[in-house]
Amino acid sequence: MSQSFGDKKDLKKKSENISDWYTDVVLKAELADYGPVRGTMIVRPYGYAIWEFVQDLMNSRMKAYGVQNAYFPLFIPYSFLQKEKAHVEGFSPELALVTVGGGEQLAEPLVVRPTSETIMYDSYSKWIQSWRDLPLLINQWNSVVRWEKRTFLFLRSMEFLWQEGHTAHEDEQGAIKMCLDAQEWYREIYEEYFAIPVVPGIKSESEKFAGAKTTYTVESLMPDGKALQGATSHNLGQNFAKAFNIQFQDKDGKNQLVWQTSWAITTRSMGALVLMHGDDNGIVLPPKIAPTQVVIVPITEDEVLRKYCEEIAEELEKSEVRVQLDSRQGWTPGRKFNDWEVKGVPVRFEIGQKEMDKTVVTIARRDTSEKYQIDRAHVVSETKKALDTIQTSMFEKAKKYLDENTHEVDSYDEFKQIMESKRGFLKVFWCEDPQCEAKIKEETKATTRCLPLDAKEEEGTCIYCGKKATHRWYFAQAY
Amino acid sequence: MSQSFGDKKDLKKKSENISDWYTDVVLKAELADYGPVRGTMIVRPYGYAIWEFVQDLMNSRMKAYGVQNAYFPLFIPYSFLQKEKAHVEGFSPELALVTVGGGEQLAEPLVVRPTSETIMYDSYSKWIQSWRDLPLLINQWNSVVRWEKRTFLFLRSMEFLWQEGHTAHEDEQGAIKMCLDAQEWYREIYEEYFAIPVVPGIKSESEKFAGAKTTYTVESLMPDGKALQGATSHNLGQNFAKAFNIQFQDKDGKNQLVWQTSWAITTRSMGALVLMHGDDNGIVLPPKIAPTQVVIVPITEDEVLRKYCEEIAEELEKSEVRVQLDSRQGWTPGRKFNDWEVKGVPVRFEIGQKEMDKTVVTIARRDTSEKYQIDRAHVVSETKKALDTIQTSMFEKAKKYLDENTHEVDSYDEFKQIMESKRGFLKVFWCEDPQCEAKIKEETKATTRCLPLDAKEEEGTCIYCGKKATHRWYFAQAY
Repeated sequence: MSQSFGDKKDLKKKSENISDWYTDVVLKAELADYGPVRGTMIVRPYGYAIWEFVQDLMNSRMKAYGVQNAYFPLFIPYSFLQKEKAHVEGFSPELALVTVGGGEQLAEPLVVRPTSETIMYDSYSKWIQSWRDLPLLINQWNSVVRWEKRTFLFLRSMEFLWQEGHTAHEDEQGAIKMCLDAQEWYREIYEEYFAIPVVPGIKSESEKFAGAKTTYTVESLMPDGKALQGATSHNLGQNFAKAFNIQFQDKDGKNQLVWQTSWAITTRSMGALVLMHGDDNGIVLPPKIAPTQVVIVPITEDEVLRKYCEEIAEELEKSEVRVQLDSRQGWTPGRKFNDWEVKGVPVRFEIGQKEMDKTVVTIARRDTSEKYQIDRAHVVSETKKALDTIQTSMFEKAKKYLDENTHEVDSYDEFKQIMESKRGFLKVFWCEDPQCEAKIKEETKATTRCLPLDAKEEEGTCIYCGKKATHRWYFAQAY
Repeated sequence: MSQSFGDKKDLKKKSENISDWYTDVVLKAELADYGPVRGTMIVRPYGYAIWEFVQDLMNSRMKAYGVQNAYFPLFIPYSFLQKEKAHVEGFSPELALVTVGGGEQLAEPLVVRPTSETIMYDSYSKWIQSWRDLPLLINQWNSVVRWEKRTFLFLRSMEFLWQEGHTAHEDEQGAIKMCLDAQEWYREIYEEYFAIPVVPGIKSESEKFAGAKTTYTVESLMPDGKALQGATSHNLGQNFAKAFNIQFQDKDGKNQLVWQTSWAITTRSMGALVLMHGDDNGIVLPPKIAPTQVVIVPITEDEVLRKYCEEIAEELEKSEVRVQLDSRQGWTPGRKFNDWEVKGVPVRFEIGQKEMDKTVVTIARRDTSEKYQIDRAHVVSETKKALDTIQTSMFEKAKKYLDENTHEVDSYDEFKQIMESKRGFLKVFWCEDPQCEAKIKEETKATTRCLPLDAKEEEGTCIYCGKKATHRWYFAQAY
């Protein structure tokens, strides 16, 4: 890929305007690009390589659990969406419709998949007959289309990539367990791989998925104090089972409706990754999901030096470190440093004559800019140690930020004041009346993000109306 | 999944009507199902698991080669397709158009991706600037839409899954090498994994891809004597480079157009798999790509027997054999046998009291129905031996069929007579005039399948017009 910058990066500053900075680094790190149709985006190879980690992480968890991958058609009859009332109301405004096929006007327009509940459950109603067929656990990897005219790379686009899990169970306990297990997979991916701490919880009635009984979520807090919904799982209850007549014969020979779930993580998570960890020098990738973990930059183009670097690269590769040797000719080391900094490679080795003479390697950490020397002989163990340290320290830094920006607030004035300044997660008593929620949103742009799974029942009064409230909900302005 | 058949299979017979039989086994083996929109299909988990082998095989080859995965949008501006004349002519009749988005009529209709040359090369023209950016090797896994009203599961459908590789090179040699290397990957997948022998060759002018300079193909012969195009790679020459102005500065500082390729294997390959190996008892899967390689059927529901079977299953699993223990209660062994036969599992273990007493296992081969006993103590090595034998023997059987149904023919009467009876591959001299090709097609339904890569230059006369011809081309009726 060609580089549009030279030794100087000319990047926008995160501290000055996070949204301009964000677009700038996503483009310059070559994670993504704009598609030619307004609203669409291209996931470039470097970005897609990160998405492939998400695919691998989810696939290994799903397969061990018994979830099987499949593929359902892109085109859904419009009439299918209408079968579940809340569902069609939620999705109608954002549909893309195919009206011409093979040169002919179609009798019924086809919906380009915005989500696959309806098309999958039509099949489920045929495939499921007995309790022996349950649980039915199916996932697909695909893209979905929801009409958008503005693109905010990864965070909002007309088409995005995701996995969508769709399961059917004999009872509601089975469905709830599935939702919680999927939520736990998402938490693991965010916290243990993306180094982004999340708050697992459930959504309010107004924020839940169109057609769900309960929506489970993992919520993260971005550096501008705005929340980002990480991934969700939905207990669909028997809403779709009724709409699509998905019945099974139970062990006693009685016909019953199944209980269902759906759950998804999308390429939006890549936006969280960039926002959370990036800095004025580019993106910063946690080692576990960095396509390249270590880049080796030889300081000169000397032949002996190149061999020294090649040996180190080979040694790391053998030990399953994802390493790249940057032997591009005609580039100054500084320009290479910048290039890899923009791309967020966690560890850079600087190796010159000095290092060779002392049989050491100079390590530069991307996350802290810290530099130190390690013994050439211990290059593998020291590199692994550095990668572990970076992974942990990135998470801790993000966790500290989350903790420092999560506030228990009991006065609406203070709530408003925080929302107008530094923002963050506000834990407040809310009476669970949608009208208060709507008023708060109108006045502060903050919405309920979730009721944390571990929320205790307490005695309190609604921050807006003063009526009785039993739990503290998380509020925030959201992406 | 529920089974619609009992101890008897009620399958259609392959020998009576291969096309009815085909649809029947694809549905009953639960590889695929019809989608609700005419022309569409659902790839069910069992079918998708086979497709995942294809994905893994291609990904490992591509990544070792330096090909990177990416994702480009589903929607392509109609004007993009028009940029390459042959391309738009080839694809126009089969496009699906989105004309409504977010409730509004669109000013320009959007094409639902039928293939991604145009949208990818628009980006390539921006990303490629210097010889340093070449070769650019990008692949995507996605689905494409080409308008069809009839579904022939896997073999023909409105939407199908594939990978599409798209590369740009400094010179034509680079592009040709890429085409040949991709063709070799496809040959390997067909021959070494699907146990389907293929003829690698190049397509005639009339059969090549819309917009290509040369199309490379691997062609297989199905049991009804019809050919099936396995996968293709296209040397696009500079056709698209001109249309999209994809230039690079070469090492001498001169601007040049890139040379390009595209190549794909689709879920159609799954159709070949079923057609080639299946029999009156269902599909037959080659061990290397069978999601389940061994199924263990305990003959009774005895507890001690179950434990004996479980231990064997564990032992095989530890040795990376994909094994399943069928402990479904209330099913007779015969019904289980039938079930797994329909699904084509290569090896069945039948284990009863008799086997336990003698510390043996009865093995039944799916491909030949042969049964024999192996020593319990050598279960792992004997199973691996059986799987290897089956893989080899399935390929050899298919190869024998191919050889026996490939004929050098020099008389057009004989050509017609064979096409009206047993069909097959006919190797005939053809003058390479598209008019002869068209006439032959009109009169016999046979088309040129390919000129084999290893075809020798010979002296001959065109089977149709009698004019001079230099090579024997493969002709066949095609799927």
